[in-house]
Amino acid sequence: MRLSVIRVRRLGGPISMLFVEVVKKKRDGHELTRNEIDFIVSSFTGGEVPDYQVSAFLMAAFIRGLSRSETAALTQAMLHSGEVLEFPEISGRKVDKHSTGGVGDKTSLILSPVVAAGGVFVPMISGRGLGHTGGTLDKLEAIPGFNVNLTLEQFRSILAKTGCAMIGQTAEVAPADKKLYALRDVTGTVESPFLICASIMSKKLAEGVDALVLDVKTGSGAFMKDPEQAEFLARLMVEAGEDMGKRMVALITDMDQPLGNKVGNALEVEECIEVMRGGGPEDLRFLTLELAGWMFYLGDRVQTVEEGKRLAWDLIATGQALAKFREMVEIQGGDSSVIDTPSVLPHAQHSATVFSAAEGFVSAIQCEQVGLASLILGGGRSKKEDTIDPAVGLTLHKKVGDMVRSNETLCTIHYNDDRNLGEARQMLENAFTVADHLPQTPRPLIHKIIRGKNA
Amino acid sequence: MRLSVIRVRRLGGPISMLFVEVVKKKRDGHELTRNEIDFIVSSFTGGEVPDYQVSAFLMAAFIRGLSRSETAALTQAMLHSGEVLEFPEISGRKVDKHSTGGVGDKTSLILSPVVAAGGVFVPMISGRGLGHTGGTLDKLEAIPGFNVNLTLEQFRSILAKTGCAMIGQTAEVAPADKKLYALRDVTGTVESPFLICASIMSKKLAEGVDALVLDVKTGSGAFMKDPEQAEFLARLMVEAGEDMGKRMVALITDMDQPLGNKVGNALEVEECIEVMRGGGPEDLRFLTLELAGWMFYLGDRVQTVEEGKRLAWDLIATGQALAKFREMVEIQGGDSSVIDTPSVLPHAQHSATVFSAAEGFVSAIQCEQVGLASLILGGGRSKKEDTIDPAVGLTLHKKVGDMVRSNETLCTIHYNDDRNLGEARQMLENAFTVADHLPQTPRPLIHKIIRGKNA
Repeated sequence: MRLSVIRVRRLGGPISMLFVEVVKKKRDGHELTRNEIDFIVSSFTGGEVPDYQVSAFLMAAFIRGLSRSETAALTQAMLHSGEVLEFPEISGRKVDKHSTGGVGDKTSLILSPVVAAGGVFVPMISGRGLGHTGGTLDKLEAIPGFNVNLTLEQFRSILAKTGCAMIGQTAEVAPADKKLYALRDVTGTVESPFLICASIMSKKLAEGVDALVLDVKTGSGAFMKDPEQAEFLARLMVEAGEDMGKRMVALITDMDQPLGNKVGNALEVEECIEVMRGGGPEDLRFLTLELAGWMFYLGDRVQTVEEGKRLAWDLIATGQALAKFREMVEIQGGDSSVIDTPSVLPHAQHSATVFSAAEGFVSAIQCEQVGLASLILGGGRSKKEDTIDPAVGLTLHKKVGDMVRSNETLCTIHYNDDRNLGEARQMLENAFTVADHLPQTPRPLIHKIIRGKNA
Repeated sequence: MRLSVIRVRRLGGPISMLFVEVVKKKRDGHELTRNEIDFIVSSFTGGEVPDYQVSAFLMAAFIRGLSRSETAALTQAMLHSGEVLEFPEISGRKVDKHSTGGVGDKTSLILSPVVAAGGVFVPMISGRGLGHTGGTLDKLEAIPGFNVNLTLEQFRSILAKTGCAMIGQTAEVAPADKKLYALRDVTGTVESPFLICASIMSKKLAEGVDALVLDVKTGSGAFMKDPEQAEFLARLMVEAGEDMGKRMVALITDMDQPLGNKVGNALEVEECIEVMRGGGPEDLRFLTLELAGWMFYLGDRVQTVEEGKRLAWDLIATGQALAKFREMVEIQGGDSSVIDTPSVLPHAQHSATVFSAAEGFVSAIQCEQVGLASLILGGGRSKKEDTIDPAVGLTLHKKVGDMVRSNETLCTIHYNDDRNLGEARQMLENAFTVADHLPQTPRPLIHKIIRGKNA
């Protein structure tokens, strides 16, 4: 249109004016070109356009959605806003796993040593917990001395030596995502599958992996409560990874109740060690083996996923996984005596018990409420700046399907500060539903598997 | 939802957090309450929320639209962000006219004295030109000495004395609109009928009128190119005025070619004086009488619109309109000798001619292009801060339907600075379409009349 051309030429701030034209295009539901998306990301990252223009774009993108090629372009523009790791010195395959987050979701701590013990490299860059969900970094930091703040050079050298390394996002990796996420958080534009996909994949693709296993959660404790939403996001992420030449798979898995029996940072480390000793709760063990099977398969270590699961189990049963975990903890500065002496981990000073008022079967656990209960005890963050208490959390004695008698313990609360104890207890009491009968069709742990074309 | 409640309570900046919740509600297409809309306007006007949150709201409102009651609530919240005039000392009816803007659209300068001469008070707060459209204030300021920057007290006293007064928007009137418009302008959220309605009506309702005649333009020179869009906006504005107890009418009128023959500030003043002398171009005279008829009718001065039109014509024919114009110009500091001696108005030093390349009939004039040609000659603004040259502009010698010979003059360009002359000439040559035949169904000047329930 003539008018816009004249405006761009005559007005001050040509970049800002051009930005408005791109915003209008998205606002009206048209597909943006790769160049236009590159322009959005680079002008925002470079500080050439004000936040209020970018938030208008984010809302337009939220409501109108993005096409597959727009999503891929956004992911790649965000990816290339920072450093993209490559490991020419490592000849083996590199595979990572990413979870969209849940309550008690602790598989990364087990997968990383298991898969590395099997000879596939795992360069894992993880996040912190926010809201009702926990974060891998917080769990690792429950181990005294464990340092997740390595430089990329340290990360690289530990990975080459140990086969696995676990760090937090550095400033060099996808800085556009950090800046965009901060703006999305305060403008009501977080929950878009397209923006979530670009955010996750821009960070994960920076890890320099050959393949990626996605664990997309669904249910009351997931961000995507609805399985269709979860599947939609899963397909977007698989496609965005494929477009970058990665082998991809997404497992839609259940987060309608916490995974495993423990929620809270040190408590979850304990539970991971139990699994690496061959024990631990069955659901956690089952899902971890499934994910490890896929990681081995996509990492070309085995011919089938089933073979990969058997390999993972062997590595656990023979103690190789735990040995690798010990090696990783030590090389990252952690106190590996936590493995043999759990009391070295931080423990809460007090505990309280949530009893069942009724007799019957646990038919549902409102999973988000469990996560929020842990949060208000100090185990999580409601905003990024909050500090957390690694010792506090919950032990669930009953899970969905378990029989329970009246006044039997449903859950133990581990706390240091009793300020929010009453509220947490109330939330937990409300979170458990005890019914006369079991639900007729129990929810599967794995709802669906979405394979990329080259997986 | 539990999560949001906890967030609001625990996070810093509770107003900002609450704002996000309202943004999300609109984002998801839900209707906001009056309280929520009041909160948006008051927290933005009070500087309690950052621009980037408000622009996210504006984009959500743009795409999702607003209901009738949301639009009314927004209009009223913006209205009450500032001073709402009342004129208890004036016993007569007060009526104003508002146009959505066009090219050569100069009726206000005629209507104000005509209607005041007929005994209905006209408290008119007008705007400046932006983009391809002209503005009443710029035209008035082409009259040497004319002061549009009166205080509200001066406005009030001139109105009571003269029956009409014409000023620009003061800081006291609808400050929320000024702030919101500035943000809309840079975030691609201007062209929403709901936001346009709230913007226009919040200012017009602050004038303390009993009735309002809306002139909603449609066609190639209007903001609403499409008659359905124009009608949609017209209905919104009529409803918003009705909700505040005003008598309302909206005329959907044609802006597919410039109104009258002159475009440019001093040139348009000249043409208005011609009309007040009983001459001037037929389309301008016809529309002015129609609007005046409605103003007299809604101001209870006459029983029918037809009677109002006859009254307006009488006031022109007897010289009372021109006498009232002279009175208004003088009381607002202007040099009224412009009325008898047009050469007192600023005149451009140079002129150039646009010839017809073909013979036939003028079948269309791209009206926005004509406005933009005047703009780049210096007669308009591409941004608010631009200064304008009151002398420059265009005289159209041919309008749609006129027969034209090859090499006959279509248009005269009046210019001072020849920098953009070539481009302006090119735009004007392209703006005229000369065809072998006339269009079979000529566009009416008045497309539709939308009466409020009490009009």
